[in-house]
Amino acid sequence: MAMKTLTLAIIFFLLLLDCSTARKPKALRHRRPCKRLVFYFHDILYNGYNAKNSTSAIVGAPTWGNTTKLTSNNHFGDMVIFDDPITLDNNLHSPRVGRAQGFYIYDKKETFTSWIAMSFVFNSTQHKGTINFVGADPILSKTRDISVIGGTGDFHMSRGVATIATDSYEGEVYFRLRCDIKLYECW
Amino acid sequence: MAMKTLTLAIIFFLLLLDCSTARKPKALRHRRPCKRLVFYFHDILYNGYNAKNSTSAIVGAPTWGNTTKLTSNNHFGDMVIFDDPITLDNNLHSPRVGRAQGFYIYDKKETFTSWIAMSFVFNSTQHKGTINFVGADPILSKTRDISVIGGTGDFHMSRGVATIATDSYEGEVYFRLRCDIKLYECW
Amino acid sequence: MAMKTLTLAIIFFLLLLDCSTARKPKALRHRRPCKRLVFYFHDILYNGYNAKNSTSAIVGAPTWGNTTKLTSNNHFGDMVIFDDPITLDNNLHSPRVGRAQGFYIYDKKETFTSWIAMSFVFNSTQHKGTINFVGADPILSKTRDISVIGGTGDFHMSRGVATIATDSYEGEVYFRLRCDIKLYECW
Repeated sequence: MAMKTLTLAIIFFLLLLDCSTARKPKALRHRRPCKRLVFYFHDILYNGYNAKNSTSAIVGAPTWGNTTKLTSNNHFGDMVIFDDPITLDNNLHSPRVGRAQGFYIYDKKETFTSWIAMSFVFNSTQHKGTINFVGADPILSKTRDISVIGGTGDFHMSRGVATIATDSYEGEVYFRLRCDIKLYECW
Repeated sequence: MAMKTLTLAIIFFLLLLDCSTARKPKALRHRRPCKRLVFYFHDILYNGYNAKNSTSAIVGAPTWGNTTKLTSNNHFGDMVIFDDPITLDNNLHSPRVGRAQGFYIYDKKETFTSWIAMSFVFNSTQHKGTINFVGADPILSKTRDISVIGGTGDFHMSRGVATIATDSYEGEVYFRLRCDIKLYECW
Repeated sequence: MAMKTLTLAIIFFLLLLDCSTARKPKALRHRRPCKRLVFYFHDILYNGYNAKNSTSAIVGAPTWGNTTKLTSNNHFGDMVIFDDPITLDNNLHSPRVGRAQGFYIYDKKETFTSWIAMSFVFNSTQHKGTINFVGADPILSKTRDISVIGGTGDFHMSRGVATIATDSYEGEVYFRLRCDIKLYECW
């Protein structure tokens, strides 16, 4: 009988092991971020005088605007394409660790608000791959949340939420944004 | 022996409990929508005469078009930025419960079809947060499905499918769309 | 005793079955693609002379460019809307199995690189539904990965990664792209 009980105990143990494995799916979903990354990116908008330094340009405008200057009506209808340097701190001259590439549009007449779609592109020893973002960006809010909708390379299949904050700006030329990325799906 | 059997039965019970817990991950995926929401949004396109009432404007057009009037060739190449009121029913004058913000493009010469990327932005007692959408929008189809690719706030990390239907339209100025949101991933 | 052991064995078996079921959630996440599809799509850019054959057109440009010709500075700031035929092999004249619809932007001054958002739209006996993509597309790289952010119909709720490669091109008019879609979330 002792032998049988032992056998049963072993089977139990294996079974428990099996079940506990079942609880660990390949990709975990987390209540708290499974990965958190903070970056700054720096947008220098072309205004007719800064061809060399600018990192973005207006490429679409409503019929009452033009592509040299952000339009009236809270820039409603302006579309800007950008290729902005990413840094680890809030210094424009810090080493670039990646590029923020994509576009934003100003989408409301009554106040400043925008909508953004972009990728963070990394190709360094620390990070290789991309993180893709989409979301409403009401720029007058102290912080605003956009969606992390996917990723590649080191960020394969990532999903999450990124909290954007305007860290600094100068007139209508320089915008520095803090991007606090919280991934809730890590593979 | 009866004692041992009882012990075994208890272990069995605990084990079963354990396994059934394993079946409930933090975020459930559902065959049927875990959340369903129906909204209407109202697009009033700027046409040169409705500066006050319009909620959207053409900001990009092909070389044969312009940004005041939707172009020929089934509007192929027109890009429209919008900030449309969201209502719970199909009445333009009902209380606004949020804003639909983003853009659509007309992307085919041979027929009317569009592609849309937008956010539903809510900031009321009922809903706080955003839902982000992307997808092909063949506007002549009675209904068409786009992807819910993410969300924030009340809609944290949501994914799903939204079925869009043109509920009504007037010429090339007013478009009323019904948006039936079915979330299959709820957090 | 033999009877009891048999009973226990049966319970074990049921329990094992139960646990193995627990390991199969409704939507599986896979380390390896749960679905893989390879397509080609063909982009013929309008250049002023090919109104009939072209499948895409420039609709936005920076202030130093125009919408007839891709601009200098590595096309930085150009936005192109497209409706491209999809084929199963690399022959432009093969049967169309769907349409690639969306837009791309050139987003860097110093080199050729783009950013793309599009849907593959299928309506054949083989595939019905859409696959939605977003991501950075550094066109000079042999291959580049973009995100599959959602899907509808046959591709309901899909997520994954698509590897894009420029299969061929002719001047600034014809671009043939190979799209190797690897879905890691299948419903």
